[in-house]
Amino acid sequence: MNSNAYTRLQELKARLVEISDINAAAALLSWDQMTLMPQGGADARGRQLATLERLSHEKMINPEIGKLLDGLQPALNELPPDSTEAALIKVATRDHQKAVKIPTSFTAEFSAHTSKTYEAWARARAEHNFKLVEPLLEKTLELSRQMANFFPGYQHIADPLIDQLDEGMTVAIIRPLFQKLRSELVPLVEQITSQPEADDSCLRKNYSEADQLRFGLEVAKRLGYDFNRGREDKSPHPFTTSFSIGDVRITTRIKENLLAEALFSTIHETGHALYEQGFNPDFEGTPLADGASMTVHESQSRLWENLVGKSLSFWQFFYPKLQAVFPNQLTAVPLEAFYRAINKVERSLIRTDADEVTYNLHVMLRFELEIEMLEGRLAVKNLSEAWNELYRNDLGVLPSDESLGVLQDMHWYSGTIGGYFQSYTLGNILSAQIYEAAVKAVPNIPAEIAIGNFEHLHYWLKENIYQYGRQYTTREIIKRVTGQPLEIQPYLNYLRHKYGELYKL
Amino acid sequence: MNSNAYTRLQELKARLVEISDINAAAALLSWDQMTLMPQGGADARGRQLATLERLSHEKMINPEIGKLLDGLQPALNELPPDSTEAALIKVATRDHQKAVKIPTSFTAEFSAHTSKTYEAWARARAEHNFKLVEPLLEKTLELSRQMANFFPGYQHIADPLIDQLDEGMTVAIIRPLFQKLRSELVPLVEQITSQPEADDSCLRKNYSEADQLRFGLEVAKRLGYDFNRGREDKSPHPFTTSFSIGDVRITTRIKENLLAEALFSTIHETGHALYEQGFNPDFEGTPLADGASMTVHESQSRLWENLVGKSLSFWQFFYPKLQAVFPNQLTAVPLEAFYRAINKVERSLIRTDADEVTYNLHVMLRFELEIEMLEGRLAVKNLSEAWNELYRNDLGVLPSDESLGVLQDMHWYSGTIGGYFQSYTLGNILSAQIYEAAVKAVPNIPAEIAIGNFEHLHYWLKENIYQYGRQYTTREIIKRVTGQPLEIQPYLNYLRHKYGELYKL
Repeated sequence: MNSNAYTRLQELKARLVEISDINAAAALLSWDQMTLMPQGGADARGRQLATLERLSHEKMINPEIGKLLDGLQPALNELPPDSTEAALIKVATRDHQKAVKIPTSFTAEFSAHTSKTYEAWARARAEHNFKLVEPLLEKTLELSRQMANFFPGYQHIADPLIDQLDEGMTVAIIRPLFQKLRSELVPLVEQITSQPEADDSCLRKNYSEADQLRFGLEVAKRLGYDFNRGREDKSPHPFTTSFSIGDVRITTRIKENLLAEALFSTIHETGHALYEQGFNPDFEGTPLADGASMTVHESQSRLWENLVGKSLSFWQFFYPKLQAVFPNQLTAVPLEAFYRAINKVERSLIRTDADEVTYNLHVMLRFELEIEMLEGRLAVKNLSEAWNELYRNDLGVLPSDESLGVLQDMHWYSGTIGGYFQSYTLGNILSAQIYEAAVKAVPNIPAEIAIGNFEHLHYWLKENIYQYGRQYTTREIIKRVTGQPLEIQPYLNYLRHKYGELYKL
Repeated sequence: MNSNAYTRLQELKARLVEISDINAAAALLSWDQMTLMPQGGADARGRQLATLERLSHEKMINPEIGKLLDGLQPALNELPPDSTEAALIKVATRDHQKAVKIPTSFTAEFSAHTSKTYEAWARARAEHNFKLVEPLLEKTLELSRQMANFFPGYQHIADPLIDQLDEGMTVAIIRPLFQKLRSELVPLVEQITSQPEADDSCLRKNYSEADQLRFGLEVAKRLGYDFNRGREDKSPHPFTTSFSIGDVRITTRIKENLLAEALFSTIHETGHALYEQGFNPDFEGTPLADGASMTVHESQSRLWENLVGKSLSFWQFFYPKLQAVFPNQLTAVPLEAFYRAINKVERSLIRTDADEVTYNLHVMLRFELEIEMLEGRLAVKNLSEAWNELYRNDLGVLPSDESLGVLQDMHWYSGTIGGYFQSYTLGNILSAQIYEAAVKAVPNIPAEIAIGNFEHLHYWLKENIYQYGRQYTTREIIKRVTGQPLEIQPYLNYLRHKYGELYKL
């Protein structure tokens, strides 16, 4: 790299760090809003967040960044393709090019519209009445299509929306995977639910909040979450956020009558946090210090939550500890009964409460509905019926009211229609593919887990995935780690093996 | 106001709100850093704060703001002088004119220098060795003088520094007040300390953190702190900060073996918070939503902490409640003994631990030292000796090492030399003047306090001071509220009366 290119790269970095700093401040404003902020702060906080988001967007679309990036393209031929510098130029180029395509006026309109829609949704859900938010959602659909059309040349209208969070993913890739997965899961659920139901009453006793919190922290620490670079707080919905590689935070929600709630959401968020704490420290302040995509991020939360946290090995180590914290509730419950309880499969209405096997059916039907809306084959006014119809078909249950149906998730009411849900199931698929690769490379991982040693797995994931942040794309990561493209077979093998044993199929 | 002026005012407001939003984000970054941030976040947090401060400064010195303000000056002749609009134009003009005088390059240099100095100070204090930070403090003095010289035409070189936080205050106003006050306080301290010492052992028992916290919150609430628009957290040094009029937060520090620590610092910060929660809600997001000056701010924290919180009436109401929380520690201690304990006067080394009577001697000697340094009459290398000399003279005590002497306060090591300390004593002076005016207007205030009713006082302060934020200058406020300029007589009367009774002088 010549000295001109070097100077350009330094200036680019300085501009990107400035944007990262603004984004970190916005992330803190938002974290605070969800965790500690007194209610009186709400109005100003909304305004402050909008200001920082606008500032960040303005900085990102600054033509000076475009010029720097143009000037740096020749350097890409000289730089080693695996170098951090090459990755930074490539990632910044993609981010800049995406950002400039969306007019600032649209961003402002969309942001104002989604605030309004979110509030209307909260009311509609409380009153179990989709009609209250329907006209706003129609506008959301229109704006979502507009958003997609800022990126002409797509193969499917949902592709640009998916690309925002799941770079490189397209309907053409996702649909066949989902069709195949659905065709395997529907009969599997049928098979499982025709067996005697698992008894999960042991999870529904009284578990004190303080003890649950303490146990969750102990688990997170043992999995490798570094609390010198993180903390846990309470919030209405659990999430992970970070303000730097040295400050990655999770939140949890505790239900005293439902042990599984805080426990598995803590392990889930810990998975996200391990990913973010694992980035190469040199990436600090640059756009490389982020997850490769929502799919890869979710693959890590689900890997730790399900493949690790709901495995028998995991509880061979942790169950005696849990029993020691809650002796009255669990002394009489054998490990195997507890293991069956946390892996109970049932047809249910609420995605976030669903077990591993049915979960993806919830997700895939949402994906199908948003695709149909974007294609213009489904009108918003028919959405609630279509939702119920798919639930009856795929899960064999029917919401008794719309708050348990079309109004249950906030996603469509707080963002675009399309672009988000796919990552939940893609993450599940990928989690099994990655875990299979990890165990192939380090065969004693499950045995180590059974004695409470998570370092082998954590180290392998850091070495192969976490450290790279956005240095590689999702597709590159999957290829590097598994030697294959994204495929559902490992996930199906995992489910069939685990639930075959559990339900003696 | 014609429609041109109206449009200009709207644009000005929008720009000021943007700056306020950036400042609020910086304030949250800083609050989080002091309260909850994991240590791993420190490096990035420093960088993020510097970025937001730079952005805010850039926005404030934008020539577009200058043009808008120029265009609005004629409107000042048409607008009612007491209107919010006129105040906004006047305040924004002052802020803009001050900001443009300080070059951005200087701000960056100064900020980098003070970070370094602060770290060196922490080390120097730990090692009780002023020499370790002396060269950096010499540079601070040089930069402080440079800073002052960006504002040519001053009467005294400290004036521009004082004006940053205490608009309109000057050495010419402060010095005679301080000289008079010192000449009265030194003999008063002499007189008091020649009496039998008060017994404060009842404050030095074991008081559990949780109970102290709970009692402090109860007091704050009763004084009128609205916790729908605020919260309290723990931090190494207590402070008040706000992110909007709807979100004003305090922090506290608890010592289990010293009841007075958390108790009176909580009342002190509550005083600051009552001021900030009391701003006219229409000021939200504008520069009017701030204290008129450090002096007025401090007058409110000290009024609530001392004139109210350390009064006999206050404890007539609260002491039985405190006894109920700590029966083992306080049942045998009569109210009068407790009242004497919390008002114990003694010659001591540490400003922040000092009682009401000696406190100002600590402050005024610091003011004198910084003035001498700025005038070039005192070299930094002689500061420690000069410090000790003044302590011997004014307080009759001598620090056994420099951590208890010249290194005890962070102020000079984290900002300019000059500009801050005066506000502590000016605030004390003003607190008595304001309280006298309040009681003159609403004579039953002390009687109401004795039955736990603080609304009369709170309402009067809101009506006469809090609601106005920066709408009036410090001098205007003092004049409006008391009919007089700032004067020490009410403060001296207060001290003489209270301590005359306590020490039977």
